[in-house]
Amino acid sequence: MITWKNMDTLAAYAELQNAPKVCLKCAMSGENGAERVKNYTVPMGAGMDFNYGARPVDDNILNILAKFAEEQQLTQKFAALYNGEVVNTGEKRRVLHHMCRGQLGDDVIADNVNKRDFYVGEQKKIADFANKVHNGEILNAAGEKFTTVCQIGIGGSDLGPRAIYLALENWAKVTGNLKMKAAFISNVDPDDAAGVLCTLDLAHTLFVLVSKSGTTLETLTNESFVKNALVEAGLNPANHMACVTSETSPLASSPDYLAAFFMDDYIGGRFSSSSGVGGCVLSLAFGPEVFADFLNGAAEADVLAKNADLKSNPALLDALIGVYERNVLGYPNTAVLPYSQALSRFPAHLQQLDMESNGKSVNRFGEPVNYVTGPIIFGEPGTNGQHSFYQLLHQGTNIVPLQFVGFKNSQMGSDVVIQGSTSQQKLCANVAAQIVAFACGKDDTDLNKKFEGGRPSSIIIGEKLTPKSVGALLAHFENKVMYQGFAWNINSFDQEGVQLGKVLAKKVLAHDTDGALKVYSDLLNI
Amino acid sequence: MITWKNMDTLAAYAELQNAPKVCLKCAMSGENGAERVKNYTVPMGAGMDFNYGARPVDDNILNILAKFAEEQQLTQKFAALYNGEVVNTGEKRRVLHHMCRGQLGDDVIADNVNKRDFYVGEQKKIADFANKVHNGEILNAAGEKFTTVCQIGIGGSDLGPRAIYLALENWAKVTGNLKMKAAFISNVDPDDAAGVLCTLDLAHTLFVLVSKSGTTLETLTNESFVKNALVEAGLNPANHMACVTSETSPLASSPDYLAAFFMDDYIGGRFSSSSGVGGCVLSLAFGPEVFADFLNGAAEADVLAKNADLKSNPALLDALIGVYERNVLGYPNTAVLPYSQALSRFPAHLQQLDMESNGKSVNRFGEPVNYVTGPIIFGEPGTNGQHSFYQLLHQGTNIVPLQFVGFKNSQMGSDVVIQGSTSQQKLCANVAAQIVAFACGKDDTDLNKKFEGGRPSSIIIGEKLTPKSVGALLAHFENKVMYQGFAWNINSFDQEGVQLGKVLAKKVLAHDTDGALKVYSDLLNI
Repeated sequence: MITWKNMDTLAAYAELQNAPKVCLKCAMSGENGAERVKNYTVPMGAGMDFNYGARPVDDNILNILAKFAEEQQLTQKFAALYNGEVVNTGEKRRVLHHMCRGQLGDDVIADNVNKRDFYVGEQKKIADFANKVHNGEILNAAGEKFTTVCQIGIGGSDLGPRAIYLALENWAKVTGNLKMKAAFISNVDPDDAAGVLCTLDLAHTLFVLVSKSGTTLETLTNESFVKNALVEAGLNPANHMACVTSETSPLASSPDYLAAFFMDDYIGGRFSSSSGVGGCVLSLAFGPEVFADFLNGAAEADVLAKNADLKSNPALLDALIGVYERNVLGYPNTAVLPYSQALSRFPAHLQQLDMESNGKSVNRFGEPVNYVTGPIIFGEPGTNGQHSFYQLLHQGTNIVPLQFVGFKNSQMGSDVVIQGSTSQQKLCANVAAQIVAFACGKDDTDLNKKFEGGRPSSIIIGEKLTPKSVGALLAHFENKVMYQGFAWNINSFDQEGVQLGKVLAKKVLAHDTDGALKVYSDLLNI
Repeated sequence: MITWKNMDTLAAYAELQNAPKVCLKCAMSGENGAERVKNYTVPMGAGMDFNYGARPVDDNILNILAKFAEEQQLTQKFAALYNGEVVNTGEKRRVLHHMCRGQLGDDVIADNVNKRDFYVGEQKKIADFANKVHNGEILNAAGEKFTTVCQIGIGGSDLGPRAIYLALENWAKVTGNLKMKAAFISNVDPDDAAGVLCTLDLAHTLFVLVSKSGTTLETLTNESFVKNALVEAGLNPANHMACVTSETSPLASSPDYLAAFFMDDYIGGRFSSSSGVGGCVLSLAFGPEVFADFLNGAAEADVLAKNADLKSNPALLDALIGVYERNVLGYPNTAVLPYSQALSRFPAHLQQLDMESNGKSVNRFGEPVNYVTGPIIFGEPGTNGQHSFYQLLHQGTNIVPLQFVGFKNSQMGSDVVIQGSTSQQKLCANVAAQIVAFACGKDDTDLNKKFEGGRPSSIIIGEKLTPKSVGALLAHFENKVMYQGFAWNINSFDQEGVQLGKVLAKKVLAHDTDGALKVYSDLLNI
């Protein structure tokens, strides 16, 4: 029997607040520090490890977090979720994105359909379609192959798929898996579509329109923009477009598309990268086998996230240490810092995933909570960030917990030896150095050169950024965010906070405004 | 006579803390709200306006901020800076980036040189070089024109120039000003260089190496990477590279470059976009006249930043309202939200500019300060962000002050009418709507659908994103950051916080580690 409880009613939360704090600088120093770093590590799927040696916890706090997990029934709540309970209470929906990549628990039958069969079936449809495009069974009107795929979508239909595409583009080039180049149009700013279109060879581009409802204004607007461009180029849009939508959407049965692939209301936008939303563009770009590898990596991370034992569950560990940092230590931000240029847009995806899921002030029953919830997420790849905002992270007046990601090997294998080391070694040396610099600091009589230390971080370490490791990374963070939502007793799966802006924007466009809104509309010449 | 004082010694700061807070929701409602938005606006150069109607201030607080500015001698300190005083006390350097774009005050003679003449002279050298590349006086070994410029640099040698290039690339395409396409290599991750190089036509690419010291490890490493690639392609690197550096750097007199352009120690990396660091790549990409327009826009904003009258000084207003939000209201973040896809990397530049300048815990004399300093900066373009992290901004448990930027017209002029409005109108309607949604909120008996309001923002409004307006935007934020540093009595012009990581990374590469650092090095296979 699951009980949904606010975090501040938990005995373990009270205990957590009273537990002695860890002196991270002390804990990380000397041979004890070395032992700690060796011990505070757990596999997180796809051959990667989650190391939390430099997070501000000790065995005592970890034990309390384990009690917290039990008292808040966190793994049971995850089980309820993957077994198909309606955990998205606001919208009265199940939450089934895990089923795109594996069967974690019971069969879930909804709307008279076995949902795993449904998702797998759509993947097969997508794989067939992609194979036909690649082998020339589906061609443009001139009988030529498509060379480029361009996704039209916004938010969850853009950030995740784009981040994953960029993560694997160079890997695909060197491994011979780049079947089609991908581009993305998202913003309603007409310069976005116009700018992307002028880089494309329209006659050989296949567009994938992604909108679950089929009513997303930005996406429909950009679709029209693209259709106009196709027509102007003498091309028939119906030969150049597929869509990913829900079966009930107006797009589903439209003759305007080469093919329609379906998702449903049980997969939220920001959790949809492993559904057709990511599957279509990524299968076209890299081939269905690569997308299947990506799903397998995600599935591995999902299975680990089921572990009731906290120390064997990397997503749960990451989540609860994050809750400790947020609610007990009072840190309002988290930075995501991948030491991999290919992950350049992964922080932007995590920013949506985390902030849209857990940026809430009411619990799942719509009652105000008396504690802070989701942190503010930002990040850029290292070593670039070191030459940018790390100054504040090291010596600023706020402490920001850090999530590093690093890989032992590069994707492309080209490298150069300068001053006795490769670039890849320099990259890895920098992330190792940063963890210790942040945690341990350095004393100096010149206070301008002093580093206080005590800045917490964790690191995810993998062999190489591959489809499987990208999948595991994605799922790890999805599951972390889910667990934090359960911990805070909020609904991580709705987004009512996006509605008011939409309503007011419609009023502006209808010239139905007064007061300040009218003045801003006038200033902007609308 | 200037006195450098900590903020908490100011009478005006004490007054500010005790001043009645503004109910933003009340202030922004009804006809008073409309009047307020009309009044709280000031020109900020290049035809743009800075509107602070939705910031949490009123006439009383603005009056106290004006007293604060006077007591802290803020415009006098700016004058000291542009007249050549050594305001970068940590590194004992002048701060002269304003001189790249105008003569704000006295001639500054340093090292026996009139510095404005020096900067202008380098710009002329760059303009000549760019013109020769464009008109075919400088060709590749095969006697063909260069078509692409690729900058190799990191931090300030990358973020600003890249953000500005992206801001103007599409504008240049439609106005016939795109002389050469630009690319950028920054990260020591070898996949960055390898990934960029495989998109370039090496025989027709001119590389610009940017490193003030000539010793930046990432940049020298990437230079070698590029040289290897050129040699492998049968090309002589010396025919394909120019550099921007200081006259005392090892690169300055090297025969390895087609040309060398100089900057000096009085221009910090993050403030160097208007020097040769931005000037070389941008003049090659768009032509020297376009770069001159950009400088003129920046110069217009600089002149406004001299105004002693707070209400006529947009940079000072933005700075001091930000200090009020940070130190009195206690908001630790600021989000930068341009409603312009072309400004996609502008937030990343501002992140460096702000966080590296003002992420400090000691004052300019090296003494600890007892108040928080620089905020954490992040942002993405709207409307994309609306479908991502805005959920937290509207309904999360933390309030984040917002800096919107919007333009009445698109850059490329292509548009589409859907549901009675253009995309550009939709874009503008959304930013207008968001300002009011954040400030005024909306009540609802379902608390999950309630918007608390009281979320502050300002907006910069321009006609169109052009070279001039990009220049004014850049200078506005540079001057804002400078003024905040003066307000907090910190040195915004050094970055000692980046040193420790460099030192430890060298130790890792030399295998001179023990304890936790050795374990991380082993885990990462170094």
